[in-house]
Amino acid sequence: MNSTALSLRHHSHFLHGGGGGAASSVITPLRSVSPFRIRMSLNENAPSIAVVGVTGAVGQEFLSVLTDRDFPYRSLKLLASKRSAGKTVKFENRNYTVEELNEESFDGIDIALFSAGGSISKKYGPVAAKKGTIVVDNSSAFRMDENVPLVIPEVNPEAMVNLKVGCGKGGIIANPNCSTIICLMAVTPLHRRAKVKRMVVSTYQAASGAGAAAMEELVQQTREVLDGKEPTCNIFNQQYAFNLFSHNAPIQPNGYNEEEMKLVKETRKIWSDMGVKVTATCIRVPVMRAHAESVNLQFEKPLDEDTARNILKNAPGIVVVDDRASNRFPTPIEVSNKDDVAVGRVRRDVSQDGDYGLDIFVCGDQIRKGAALNAVQIAEMLL
Amino acid sequence: MNSTALSLRHHSHFLHGGGGGAASSVITPLRSVSPFRIRMSLNENAPSIAVVGVTGAVGQEFLSVLTDRDFPYRSLKLLASKRSAGKTVKFENRNYTVEELNEESFDGIDIALFSAGGSISKKYGPVAAKKGTIVVDNSSAFRMDENVPLVIPEVNPEAMVNLKVGCGKGGIIANPNCSTIICLMAVTPLHRRAKVKRMVVSTYQAASGAGAAAMEELVQQTREVLDGKEPTCNIFNQQYAFNLFSHNAPIQPNGYNEEEMKLVKETRKIWSDMGVKVTATCIRVPVMRAHAESVNLQFEKPLDEDTARNILKNAPGIVVVDDRASNRFPTPIEVSNKDDVAVGRVRRDVSQDGDYGLDIFVCGDQIRKGAALNAVQIAEMLL
Repeated sequence: MNSTALSLRHHSHFLHGGGGGAASSVITPLRSVSPFRIRMSLNENAPSIAVVGVTGAVGQEFLSVLTDRDFPYRSLKLLASKRSAGKTVKFENRNYTVEELNEESFDGIDIALFSAGGSISKKYGPVAAKKGTIVVDNSSAFRMDENVPLVIPEVNPEAMVNLKVGCGKGGIIANPNCSTIICLMAVTPLHRRAKVKRMVVSTYQAASGAGAAAMEELVQQTREVLDGKEPTCNIFNQQYAFNLFSHNAPIQPNGYNEEEMKLVKETRKIWSDMGVKVTATCIRVPVMRAHAESVNLQFEKPLDEDTARNILKNAPGIVVVDDRASNRFPTPIEVSNKDDVAVGRVRRDVSQDGDYGLDIFVCGDQIRKGAALNAVQIAEMLL
Repeated sequence: MNSTALSLRHHSHFLHGGGGGAASSVITPLRSVSPFRIRMSLNENAPSIAVVGVTGAVGQEFLSVLTDRDFPYRSLKLLASKRSAGKTVKFENRNYTVEELNEESFDGIDIALFSAGGSISKKYGPVAAKKGTIVVDNSSAFRMDENVPLVIPEVNPEAMVNLKVGCGKGGIIANPNCSTIICLMAVTPLHRRAKVKRMVVSTYQAASGAGAAAMEELVQQTREVLDGKEPTCNIFNQQYAFNLFSHNAPIQPNGYNEEEMKLVKETRKIWSDMGVKVTATCIRVPVMRAHAESVNLQFEKPLDEDTARNILKNAPGIVVVDDRASNRFPTPIEVSNKDDVAVGRVRRDVSQDGDYGLDIFVCGDQIRKGAALNAVQIAEMLL
């Protein structure tokens, strides 16, 4: 997948935003780092950073977000598998050589951002933590571990209050699953006001959740289908172009796939509310890098739609796009490469009595707030 | 839209099924009528048929379905707007000239299949009915008219029991909206057993619902985006390729769009159950001609998932695709050009107590069972 990520970046003529007004109309799976900004973030008093899985879609986005947010760092180590070791990555006008991940990689590292899959996290996360590194892990490996905080900074920053760089103590913090982050960014402000009793979620998930190779396969398949050819199915075992399908995560004995159960379980943990009832149906749609979610909410206390919209307008990290007159609501293309999660279609649920129910529609960039941005925000709270 | 339909049919190199094993892997918005079948349906004792809006996507599908089902007819009249009048359409080895629709079009016509938009139906439906024609109308014009049956033949055939060809009495029967048909095909068998109290629907709707021109625009936009160009937005006011958006039907004062309220209201009428609670969020996805729907159900009586699956396996017009081990469930591509509605992801809703809730995922061909097939099935019940 690593070489694919690099080649995706290379095919920039159709995959990049292109800047300016065209940004909303093209596929933009990966961003290039602007070489024209003056960087202030290289700082002797700042933490030493490692990025694990730097050649993947999220790994590349870690770098974009670090630079976009002027994240302060003393040094930067780029880690990946043996296959990618030796490659050169340019970041903030310096060339870095990708190093092979091993047990010594974390010596002297303050913060490590992991996005190299669950098995890498399981193996190297504890190694790093033991060496005093604070790991922000984007995999599912530790999310449900009761000793690991599962954090969306806008939602439950209190969960990681004991972890700081410079306290001499390593640890692991888990980044929630992308669908959970995007959903709870919108729902939590409403939950705080009216307490969510039950939530029914249907997702419209982008290719990026399956990595850069899946994004490239969607492009390839689409070309093939338009040319009347059989689509190449390497990443998924079925046609993705002009199609959609139930999320490919394994189905559990209860009939839910793992992606759906993440929404169920992670919501409980993040809200510290074991009583909240959640069901989800997770579907992959032929969209490049932003997820959408249709969310039906049942509340304990009444919450009318105008109040809900005002709460959302004032919520951090949220933009309300809810123009009924011109039929303009959140779309994946419009949130792609954006930090904010967009919410719209806010309306009283006609299937519930009074003001105890709402329907909303949410879109968020899966690679950015759904993964890299949330992880870097967690890292910022460690400073 | 009519000329677009014909040109879509013309571009058959990538839009058609191509036959055989390749059928599931290509875009198949319109079907061609096989010239190699021996037709048995031209019959002096059979009804005279008119098709109104024959050059549109659904109009073309009316012809495919009539021939696929050996629908008996004495004569066939093809009607469309002035723009399409004079065109030649080949059907069952005969050439027909498309005639311009006018007030005299229905003289001597027993059954008229309408799919030319609500305003044409409103104007000419009553004209035809007064002349003794039984109109099967695919528009929304008469669906909520209390004197007009709204029929899914597998669901509520009793609603049209008084209308028959040869009784000398004209009338209008409404075809429900595509999303309603596809949803209720799957849900009604479960409703009959356990009574649905509340239903939360999120749709994944294909381009075909907006007509042949929308399907063509999706293809054109996709080519443009892959080539790094700005997408052409004529039918919709935003990018559709590699994107999705809230259904473009007008938003009503309650915040729902008309497509969503069709699901709410038509369900009540078809089930003759004004108490059933329905909410829906309708989303257009970049898929060509089959809708998908994520449906959450709350029942009055318990219904476990195995019983539900068995009920569905025995339901007419339903195919159960629910292979958890190999992660195979219904997809739009696999139901395209098929008559049956596919149901899968049948599972106990973990957010509800006991066996009072189920989640299911449904796919159905929007042009076929969602429109033309259902209308022709209604016409069959008139014989």
